Amino acid sequence: LLPPPIADLGEDALIERIRKRAGVPPAWLALGIGDDAAVLIPDRNRRIVVTTDCLVEDVHFRRAWGRFNAVGHKALAVTLSDLAAMGATPRACLLSLALPPRLPLADFDELIDGFCGLAASARAPLAGGNLSRSPGPLVIDVTALGSAHPRRVLTRSGGRPGDELYLSGRIGGAAAGLAILERPDQTGALPATEHVVARFSKPTPRLRLGRLAADSRAVTACVDLSDGLADAVHRIARASGTGAAIDAGSVPVDELPGERSEDGLLEVMAGGEDYELLFAVAPRRRGAFLAAARRCPDAPVTRIGQLTRDPAVVLAGENRLQSIPPGFRHF
Amino acid sequence: LLPPPIADLGEDALIERIRKRAGVPPAWLALGIGDDAAVLIPDRNRRIVVTTDCLVEDVHFRRAWGRFNAVGHKALAVTLSDLAAMGATPRACLLSLALPPRLPLADFDELIDGFCGLAASARAPLAGGNLSRSPGPLVIDVTALGSAHPRRVLTRSGGRPGDELYLSGRIGGAAAGLAILERPDQTGALPATEHVVARFSKPTPRLRLGRLAADSRAVTACVDLSDGLADAVHRIARASGTGAAIDAGSVPVDELPGERSEDGLLEVMAGGEDYELLFAVAPRRRGAFLAAARRCPDAPVTRIGQLTRDPAVVLAGENRLQSIPPGFRHF
Repeated sequence: LLPPPIADLGEDALIERIRKRAGVPPAWLALGIGDDAAVLIPDRNRRIVVTTDCLVEDVHFRRAWGRFNAVGHKALAVTLSDLAAMGATPRACLLSLALPPRLPLADFDELIDGFCGLAASARAPLAGGNLSRSPGPLVIDVTALGSAHPRRVLTRSGGRPGDELYLSGRIGGAAAGLAILERPDQTGALPATEHVVARFSKPTPRLRLGRLAADSRAVTACVDLSDGLADAVHRIARASGTGAAIDAGSVPVDELPGERSEDGLLEVMAGGEDYELLFAVAPRRRGAFLAAARRCPDAPVTRIGQLTRDPAVVLAGENRLQSIPPGFRHF
Repeated sequence: LLPPPIADLGEDALIERIRKRAGVPPAWLALGIGDDAAVLIPDRNRRIVVTTDCLVEDVHFRRAWGRFNAVGHKALAVTLSDLAAMGATPRACLLSLALPPRLPLADFDELIDGFCGLAASARAPLAGGNLSRSPGPLVIDVTALGSAHPRRVLTRSGGRPGDELYLSGRIGGAAAGLAILERPDQTGALPATEHVVARFSKPTPRLRLGRLAADSRAVTACVDLSDGLADAVHRIARASGTGAAIDAGSVPVDELPGERSEDGLLEVMAGGEDYELLFAVAPRRRGAFLAAARRCPDAPVTRIGQLTRDPAVVLAGENRLQSIPPGFRHF
């Protein structure tokens, strides 16, 4: 007996299932799910920070993995990670789904549960969205709205030569987790399997760290690691008009393919999906930044290098400098 | 020789093409395309109104039609229509694309041109977005942000028995236009072909009408006609706790299948995509509403019925009342 698909229900019934899971809206949400649009009361003297991100089946996840709770969680997490990188406080989110009609209702419910679980803990209530039919993959588009102090918005472009680069957490875990999910037959041989799978499938957006770092007034530039550390370093350097030097020995890595080597590190730096934050910090404000970071012990920060006047972006190893490739995202 | 596909370019090059087409951002957009998120300066003493909508290839449009300019226009138009129905003024939009890698670059450019053309005329500048690869259909997700006076937000739920129902423009054109696009071989036989095709493929969001109607303080409820007039009437009636009676002879129709009949009208009322607005208006404020509507001569309003104490939603014809089916949107 096949499980019932969402096609057995109408759009209104699915929206009702979402509304039940979304919980009670907070006071700043003047109008939530169920009208033509959502209405928010803006925070006084704050900027609106808004971003959108998307998970596509067979690009970012596979239905065969199951783990729909993680898929729902991650769709919101990757979007909130952008707010974290701006130092913004989440206020609300919107969920737009393109749904294959044969998707089992239980998977739909699990996806919504995962989404709403993170929405509740991040205080980013689901305020509205859209449901469409998809003739192909399941597509999950998320918009997140937040607010930030006008003078404490963290952009990519404020870095200066000499600023120190700090990374939250570790890199490489998500890529290792993805490799395990793609080849489940080899899973048994790898240590710490569930830890790195969770790094890929249920990332934690570094919202508190981003907000506290912004409040420290020490951060000159920030970006999240959606497309890898190499990409993040290049983006801050390019936007700030600087170069960067990364100290190969200092980068905290979850998993390395084979022996720890500089080539192995470059490979890990090119991998994405770790959703950590990279900060450029003015040296004279280092103390304020580190004090803020200590309040977020779940993702300790590590100094991994600095911005440079020389426009090159390089990895400084024991005996040599080599340039870090910028990465090229194909379609 | 095949045209170059977007896969020949990287994500950054595509974003650069979008940025060029997006034009110069207005002052309220503190940070636009190119960072982790966009930053907006909120309007003082106004609410934030936010909504999202989506076009999916082979559900809402076909690539074989060409008309990518119209596809880009429509993706934003259907989203802005939700802001119009709230009486909100657009402030910014976000565009999230899931792109098939073989999509010709010329089609991508045309889509962005159509999108940015409407963004400019509606003063809803493109502030950011996301690009993903799609292994299946082209998916266009749009988020629109607007602002509205706290006491002049038009919801669906404020209607009262006795309120008059007004419709902007005419219905049925979009469905007729879709029928022509789906059967191009029969096009020659139909009159006014391009007019109704444009009604389907390049709808005009009724932003000015929605805003002026909200300012008139005459409107008790409003909804847009994305899913048809029957659906719109049901939604206002249900949210307001009323019924509704529609006068069959009064509904302005673009195209009727065959002779004008009540069954034909019900069919047209069940069709969607006209993106007109349906208003409930307090009778004592009728004059203020009509004065506002006269300032939007491109979509004149017509009184088509009223809200009723009786909870039924009915079509009043010459000799009989019949109930209007609520519609059921399948997946």
